[in-house]
Amino acid sequence: MVKLIAIYRKPENIQEFDQHYSEIHTPLAKKMPGLIKLEINKIYGAPTGESDLCLIAEMYFENHDALMQALSSPEGRAAGKDLMGFAGKIVSMHFAEVL
Amino acid sequence: MVKLIAIYRKPENIQEFDQHYSEIHTPLAKKMPGLIKLEINKIYGAPTGESDLCLIAEMYFENHDALMQALSSPEGRAAGKDLMGFAGKIVSMHFAEVL
Repeated sequence: MVKLIAIYRKPENIQEFDQHYSEIHTPLAKKMPGLIKLEINKIYGAPTGESDLCLIAEMYFENHDALMQALSSPEGRAAGKDLMGFAGKIVSMHFAEVL
Repeated sequence: MVKLIAIYRKPENIQEFDQHYSEIHTPLAKKMPGLIKLEINKIYGAPTGESDLCLIAEMYFENHDALMQALSSPEGRAAGKDLMGFAGKIVSMHFAEVL
């Protein structure tokens, strides 16, 4: 099992971000072919005080080929385009193998 | 359900890090009372090329109280002390609510 992990730092306007993320971006991400599960983690703090992050989204795929096919599909490209538009400056994306 | 999420940037010596993480730190983390699940994500790349991260560890707890009790327990303090020793400069910790 592999994951595409999106890590979002805190945006300037959290209310605007939350609304776009839940109403526009999440439905687009869920359309990606081969997506097994989307787990959304809302960051609310840190052991040392405040966190610099606001959200971590984890998209599970069967394997790396399935993940790459999802990213290059029309649905994946639409989600990617939307992502860059509303969160390009605050997001980082990573590939992970679940051990 | 909540998670304690540890995000590790790439260490100087990845082999040394991997060995300490799997042989010393993981057994300590697993002893934390109330830990429901530990999911270890090994970062192996990024859509844009290389990732600056090497690992994301997710520790699941029933709720925030259980997480805080685990952190302040003798087992949690032992895991935290070990963490600061081998990865203090490359790790960030976050509290997350699973949506």
